[in-house]
Amino acid sequence: MDRNEIFRLLEQFSQGELKKEEVVDHISSLGLEELGFATIDTDRTNRTGIPEVIYSAGKTPQQVADIAERMSKRGIPVMATRATREMFDAVHAVIPGAIYHEMARAIVYQNEKPQTSEKYIAVVSAGTSDMPVSEEAAITAEFLGARVERIYDVGVAGIHRLFHRMELIKGASVVVVVAGMEGALASVVGGLVDIPVIGVPCSAGYGANFGGVSALLSMLNSCASGVSVVNIDNGFGAACQAFLIVKSMQG
Amino acid sequence: MDRNEIFRLLEQFSQGELKKEEVVDHISSLGLEELGFATIDTDRTNRTGIPEVIYSAGKTPQQVADIAERMSKRGIPVMATRATREMFDAVHAVIPGAIYHEMARAIVYQNEKPQTSEKYIAVVSAGTSDMPVSEEAAITAEFLGARVERIYDVGVAGIHRLFHRMELIKGASVVVVVAGMEGALASVVGGLVDIPVIGVPCSAGYGANFGGVSALLSMLNSCASGVSVVNIDNGFGAACQAFLIVKSMQG
Amino acid sequence: MDRNEIFRLLEQFSQGELKKEEVVDHISSLGLEELGFATIDTDRTNRTGIPEVIYSAGKTPQQVADIAERMSKRGIPVMATRATREMFDAVHAVIPGAIYHEMARAIVYQNEKPQTSEKYIAVVSAGTSDMPVSEEAAITAEFLGARVERIYDVGVAGIHRLFHRMELIKGASVVVVVAGMEGALASVVGGLVDIPVIGVPCSAGYGANFGGVSALLSMLNSCASGVSVVNIDNGFGAACQAFLIVKSMQG
Amino acid sequence: MDRNEIFRLLEQFSQGELKKEEVVDHISSLGLEELGFATIDTDRTNRTGIPEVIYSAGKTPQQVADIAERMSKRGIPVMATRATREMFDAVHAVIPGAIYHEMARAIVYQNEKPQTSEKYIAVVSAGTSDMPVSEEAAITAEFLGARVERIYDVGVAGIHRLFHRMELIKGASVVVVVAGMEGALASVVGGLVDIPVIGVPCSAGYGANFGGVSALLSMLNSCASGVSVVNIDNGFGAACQAFLIVKSMQG
Amino acid sequence: MDRNEIFRLLEQFSQGELKKEEVVDHISSLGLEELGFATIDTDRTNRTGIPEVIYSAGKTPQQVADIAERMSKRGIPVMATRATREMFDAVHAVIPGAIYHEMARAIVYQNEKPQTSEKYIAVVSAGTSDMPVSEEAAITAEFLGARVERIYDVGVAGIHRLFHRMELIKGASVVVVVAGMEGALASVVGGLVDIPVIGVPCSAGYGANFGGVSALLSMLNSCASGVSVVNIDNGFGAACQAFLIVKSMQG
Amino acid sequence: MDRNEIFRLLEQFSQGELKKEEVVDHISSLGLEELGFATIDTDRTNRTGIPEVIYSAGKTPQQVADIAERMSKRGIPVMATRATREMFDAVHAVIPGAIYHEMARAIVYQNEKPQTSEKYIAVVSAGTSDMPVSEEAAITAEFLGARVERIYDVGVAGIHRLFHRMELIKGASVVVVVAGMEGALASVVGGLVDIPVIGVPCSAGYGANFGGVSALLSMLNSCASGVSVVNIDNGFGAACQAFLIVKSMQG
Amino acid sequence: MDRNEIFRLLEQFSQGELKKEEVVDHISSLGLEELGFATIDTDRTNRTGIPEVIYSAGKTPQQVADIAERMSKRGIPVMATRATREMFDAVHAVIPGAIYHEMARAIVYQNEKPQTSEKYIAVVSAGTSDMPVSEEAAITAEFLGARVERIYDVGVAGIHRLFHRMELIKGASVVVVVAGMEGALASVVGGLVDIPVIGVPCSAGYGANFGGVSALLSMLNSCASGVSVVNIDNGFGAACQAFLIVKSMQG
Amino acid sequence: MDRNEIFRLLEQFSQGELKKEEVVDHISSLGLEELGFATIDTDRTNRTGIPEVIYSAGKTPQQVADIAERMSKRGIPVMATRATREMFDAVHAVIPGAIYHEMARAIVYQNEKPQTSEKYIAVVSAGTSDMPVSEEAAITAEFLGARVERIYDVGVAGIHRLFHRMELIKGASVVVVVAGMEGALASVVGGLVDIPVIGVPCSAGYGANFGGVSALLSMLNSCASGVSVVNIDNGFGAACQAFLIVKSMQG
Repeated sequence: MDRNEIFRLLEQFSQGELKKEEVVDHISSLGLEELGFATIDTDRTNRTGIPEVIYSAGKTPQQVADIAERMSKRGIPVMATRATREMFDAVHAVIPGAIYHEMARAIVYQNEKPQTSEKYIAVVSAGTSDMPVSEEAAITAEFLGARVERIYDVGVAGIHRLFHRMELIKGASVVVVVAGMEGALASVVGGLVDIPVIGVPCSAGYGANFGGVSALLSMLNSCASGVSVVNIDNGFGAACQAFLIVKSMQG
Repeated sequence: MDRNEIFRLLEQFSQGELKKEEVVDHISSLGLEELGFATIDTDRTNRTGIPEVIYSAGKTPQQVADIAERMSKRGIPVMATRATREMFDAVHAVIPGAIYHEMARAIVYQNEKPQTSEKYIAVVSAGTSDMPVSEEAAITAEFLGARVERIYDVGVAGIHRLFHRMELIKGASVVVVVAGMEGALASVVGGLVDIPVIGVPCSAGYGANFGGVSALLSMLNSCASGVSVVNIDNGFGAACQAFLIVKSMQG
Repeated sequence: MDRNEIFRLLEQFSQGELKKEEVVDHISSLGLEELGFATIDTDRTNRTGIPEVIYSAGKTPQQVADIAERMSKRGIPVMATRATREMFDAVHAVIPGAIYHEMARAIVYQNEKPQTSEKYIAVVSAGTSDMPVSEEAAITAEFLGARVERIYDVGVAGIHRLFHRMELIKGASVVVVVAGMEGALASVVGGLVDIPVIGVPCSAGYGANFGGVSALLSMLNSCASGVSVVNIDNGFGAACQAFLIVKSMQG
Repeated sequence: MDRNEIFRLLEQFSQGELKKEEVVDHISSLGLEELGFATIDTDRTNRTGIPEVIYSAGKTPQQVADIAERMSKRGIPVMATRATREMFDAVHAVIPGAIYHEMARAIVYQNEKPQTSEKYIAVVSAGTSDMPVSEEAAITAEFLGARVERIYDVGVAGIHRLFHRMELIKGASVVVVVAGMEGALASVVGGLVDIPVIGVPCSAGYGANFGGVSALLSMLNSCASGVSVVNIDNGFGAACQAFLIVKSMQG
Repeated sequence: MDRNEIFRLLEQFSQGELKKEEVVDHISSLGLEELGFATIDTDRTNRTGIPEVIYSAGKTPQQVADIAERMSKRGIPVMATRATREMFDAVHAVIPGAIYHEMARAIVYQNEKPQTSEKYIAVVSAGTSDMPVSEEAAITAEFLGARVERIYDVGVAGIHRLFHRMELIKGASVVVVVAGMEGALASVVGGLVDIPVIGVPCSAGYGANFGGVSALLSMLNSCASGVSVVNIDNGFGAACQAFLIVKSMQG
Repeated sequence: MDRNEIFRLLEQFSQGELKKEEVVDHISSLGLEELGFATIDTDRTNRTGIPEVIYSAGKTPQQVADIAERMSKRGIPVMATRATREMFDAVHAVIPGAIYHEMARAIVYQNEKPQTSEKYIAVVSAGTSDMPVSEEAAITAEFLGARVERIYDVGVAGIHRLFHRMELIKGASVVVVVAGMEGALASVVGGLVDIPVIGVPCSAGYGANFGGVSALLSMLNSCASGVSVVNIDNGFGAACQAFLIVKSMQG
Repeated sequence: MDRNEIFRLLEQFSQGELKKEEVVDHISSLGLEELGFATIDTDRTNRTGIPEVIYSAGKTPQQVADIAERMSKRGIPVMATRATREMFDAVHAVIPGAIYHEMARAIVYQNEKPQTSEKYIAVVSAGTSDMPVSEEAAITAEFLGARVERIYDVGVAGIHRLFHRMELIKGASVVVVVAGMEGALASVVGGLVDIPVIGVPCSAGYGANFGGVSALLSMLNSCASGVSVVNIDNGFGAACQAFLIVKSMQG
Repeated sequence: MDRNEIFRLLEQFSQGELKKEEVVDHISSLGLEELGFATIDTDRTNRTGIPEVIYSAGKTPQQVADIAERMSKRGIPVMATRATREMFDAVHAVIPGAIYHEMARAIVYQNEKPQTSEKYIAVVSAGTSDMPVSEEAAITAEFLGARVERIYDVGVAGIHRLFHRMELIKGASVVVVVAGMEGALASVVGGLVDIPVIGVPCSAGYGANFGGVSALLSMLNSCASGVSVVNIDNGFGAACQAFLIVKSMQG
């Protein structure tokens, strides 16, 4: 709870601008707005640096469109992850300016492009089957206002491809490494850079990859010491943390 | 491979300072020194920002002491994690200035204290049983040169304890959250701050915590969007990544 | 086996109202009625306080309708969980008064509304993706005769939303907490109330949530001491136990 | 946050009894007391109905004794679970009135016996190997002030033993069923009573019981509808919830 | 390798009825017939007491029909498990006398009904959702020549239903118990009879039943001592072993 | 419940030999005797064909001795599985005739040797590391009165060893196959005999055998159709079921 | 990095054929060619002995065709695994000479048949349900240039089928054993031959086979000492390693 | 079964050198010798190329010594894996020439050194904690007669260490890669060589490495196509397969 806010309320109370009941109500409902089927978290951007983003899986196209419309009307930039084209069509009908990133499965609408950071995030992927997740990470980071450099298809089966791009990777402020199968790329990159590495294990594969568990365990057990990990296929989450790191460096 | 280094070598070669064979040898063995039973990574600090640290589990006290002594003789600062008191006694016999952090199970020896950063890392823990891991994180971060603030025993069973310390947490550059059992603390903190949160799941508990898997899955599935995770009980790894974030903000 | 019932049978036997064979038959088949493909448990409500409820998954619409019709003809109130609209259409054709709760995926038919309890159950959910399970819990509790208060979408990513509703939650006799992802809400609520909390882990999510295992383990390892747990997505079971608690308090 | 408490503080503030700074401090630190290595939750009993209990596993005897002594000096009743006899000796040295329940592995000290409830909890166990957990449940419930009836060694391998004790079980307000191996007892009891059943899966067994997972899954998948479950071997947690149910029925 | 067969071959060899090469060939290919895409095990019935049965899952209707036709032409009785109606249509087109057991998902064709044993197998099931597996067991046993008594829907949620049928169960030579969810029925029956009990765990259920793992672990950990277990949903395998037991008692 | 017993009680009641209260008491406590810390199942042999056997793991030597002494005084034959030599010493002090089978970790005491069956059980093991489990099976079967033939160390790494002993195996009434590692022996034997095969997976091994899970899954998925399985290392349970099969064939 | 290549470059540099910048560029991009959405590994055959093969799962038919076309234009032989007929149609439209192996789910195009080795690989399978994987192995090995002998449907349920074919198996240079269910065939073959055995666990089966985990664990725990294992259903990978073995023996 | 052997026996039979009974006995017991507690596989070397090796885990020192002595007396070379020093002392007492490789935990005794192959096996390890397994592999390969080159401590955290040794690795006939933690080294090496790679996952590590499962899954899911895998920590098995490959190349 914000001490300054309480100070301000007490100030108003002691000057008779607020009644006792009003102070009680204010204190207990700071930053909250009750809707029909949802309780909107109106100050999430202020609090966590990242606005609410619609997780579309399990929602109907109409539901996604309704939420997107309401957000856009309040001037909140709109992003919907894990969105199908059918969902996009529904959103596009109410927000004509919305854009669909097919590979990333993401719908984006921003009234004005965010000012892009000078510092950049390197999104590095092991193979082409990891692209939906890599692109979700890249598009999310760009939506939040970060500059992104994509270095794709440089997995360890042909490791010289990675070395060829190392200078671009080393110049980044943070690296997001997306890899399925055995996920070795996160460790290899982590052993070569002096910046934070966020690993995103991918579910692409079969058999004993167990839907991404193989890459997840690889990254959690990385022998490189500066690597942390997010959920399987969670390109969105990796981008959020990468953005927070870049944002703090900006100033 | 460092392009500048190759340029420099070619320069010397074209000026006759190096013979062809010497250039070939230099290029193929940059930053490497072969020992008896180990291949020392002499430029790990330059490359990754973090020096080699001794992982003591499974080593004999004598082995730990031997490695520590060799490193200290080269002027490399020494840290050994997961070290027992018996290991410390062996190290202390050869490096009288070494210090043992009992709770953190860490041996540390630094010729000169590193210059501490102004920015700080908040190490937040859920309970007292998480202290060995929390302290491993804190001691590691301090060893690397970061300022640390400890906020311990503020788990969600008594969540007002956390709120009382939120200002200190919000002032940090990055938060390391250490929690066992259900690991809910990482999500709660992640929903309240606009800085990166690194979760460290702890193995403390019994039954269906499965040696820390419960907290690990909680943190990987955090509903807060800026949370990443390291291996169970890996306070060391979390501190490394947190340090890289603070370091990049410094300069 | 009911001692009073045996007493009564012996009474009748000693007064010649029942023959020996009749007593033997009665004693060995108390409360049971054999049908074609099922053995109906006619006194389940008397015995356990909760009538038989149709678990529709894996049944054909016709089968659901047949069972519902037979139960309604005996005057037993009808509830079918995990029911599709197609199943409802089949039921509705034979029981015109039946109602379909789409979100809860439940068919309900009660000749007369049960008398609603004064005490109430708080059904608290973390997010909108948990609604099918939350509603299954709420509808089940109401079907059994409990008053229900719904407090939805108050997960820990924006924890002030929960605090705003705490008074309503604290006034309940028992709390059912429905949460997917990391399931942290059960612990947070459990640390704030002095009434029983029943956690329902949800399968909503992806990757390392493993179909609800993440939330299940979180709730089983809750650091709050008054929390028990039911199966993943089992809103029905949580409501049954919550109802038994409320019922015992009533009388 | 307690609205009445805020009202009271504002009252004092408006009457000049408290300065603005004092109100701010009070509001932000209600019910909390900072110690050296721990943050004591001083109003846990008021908030959750259950005082802090010492989880001894992983602590030294000295640490257990220190915490116990501090609590007893504040007049808080002391209970330590998972305690060894060595721990008890340390506690007994500083709290001579402390009692050790060997089978339950629990240390208890209460200045005055709590008033025992009229309603009772039935603790039902499947076999003698479940006794440490059954007794932990029974002793905890008695410590909190509940009356307990023990019905032990009535597992389904000889199910008539259970039937012989059903009247005592049916007279309870809530049943705690403790069972290892296949944990079938929880379902059997749940199908015979109209009161809440809390299952405690036990780790006793070998091979494919996987340290209690077998019984845990059995209880989570119980075909009886009023059964909820706590962590493996968590007799303490089951007793806490059972006590909350009995307490609410009392008054 | 059959010593008598070798004796007989040597007899023929010493009497000049077989050449040396013929003896070598015979010895090395006893009981085997090579086809195009399969190696038919022509003496499986002689060797194991049970003929080859077609496991249809993953085969096309045409493939199932081809194999069935070839077997029926050799006079081998035909059974196909896990067969769809589409598969049956294909079989029926080539073997008009074939019968489809829809609930059991089994195709059967026998030129002449096998002589049914006097001794019988009791197939006991917990609920109606277990019927596909129970019927697979019952139909398989009847196909092999065993008499079967079906006792369905007598699970432990209403355990008096089981007791009412115990005499029929106790009169069997072996009991096959089919149960999903927590699978407690196998232990309860095992504790009441002095004949072998074969448990068949069922996959019916959701959440933490993990596709039948819950019932599988329950049955493996049964506290009753005469219970063995087959694979999840393997009604066929349980019937085979039950038949071998009945067969050995017959003769 | 035994219908004959009820008949007999009613007979006595109608002839005035029993009072009504006595009949009620008798009916509700048939075959049961309450002790201090245990509820003895006095008619388990009558009911299930197998007497109570002491599972010693987790008991103190004194407890094992106490139970053994009490059973021997009632004339019940005594067997204790998973017993250490220390436990045997305690038992031997009170039952001088008790015998310790070291390899099988079993204590046995029988006043008179049971009459051994003509039919025999073949106990087949894959390797010498499976001997504790093989011997537990063999000793248990002999204790119950079955004749046993041991065929040890004939695993598939040298499969001709098995073939050399096939005649002895084929002559048995039932085969118990004990195997660790990949447990292939159960399938190989199951494909060669026309009698029931009970597989006992062993925990011997390391790494990805996961304490016997490897062999357990192998046996559950056996391609041979007459194989059932018991818990990992459960030689006792396999012997019990094998004995019930032999017993039924005898009479 | 290839020392000879560096020597050659330095030679050219010292003779003025290359400028310093050109040497730097060459050294840092040896064997690599950047495309739009992929980074082609142009010298994989030279480096690893096996060309790039298209893993089709998760790709659109158009994507598969595009990659295949590009490769064929460069004269690289084309193989696509896990390909549907729809994918083949797309490939066939652009490469008329392409062939579809339906059972193996593989598309193959080779301008000229590779010279087939004299040494051969034995591909041995347990049953007909393993054929897609067996054929993937066989077709891959033939594509790479190895001679293959297929020995199918010789699983341990009828082990004499295997013995009949042992001479052909023993004559191979390496054996690939494909088996689902309990995967016992790999151990049996491993115990009979003195050549390397590569096991391929198959996912065919149900219940506790857990999608091939059962066979995977069996093969990893093989009691035969010369057996190694690849991923579940990975016929391709087994063929690659088998080919490398044969290739090294050739020359 | 060896056709030549049968031919020879028939030859002797037809010439009257053997009686019919003798032929039958010979045929059914080829290559087998029955001992007290074990069935010795006397022709394992002839059959599989690798002699019996003693797996010492779970055996007493005396048992290991007994087996070793018996083997040495028959002139069979002796190797015991997973042996403690205490076991070695027992062996040394009866075989004075036996040698103990402490790091490899292996006892070896060979009357005459085997002729070492010209071709060599490269044993490559990621770190020093993998040495017991690496050395088990190296010592085993040398015992069998292969030349071994050790390349230790070249894991991906400092990948230039690996590149420095690539020429030695590339010159091998087969590579054994030993790695714990995330096991990435197997993929990296597999992507750089054109010879077979056998991965040995190591259990060294903690938390989510789950006793080596992390490295096991990594290696099974390797993106490099010529990699196969053995059980966790199974240096012995990897060496056996590697030896078979080298052996076949020799001649």
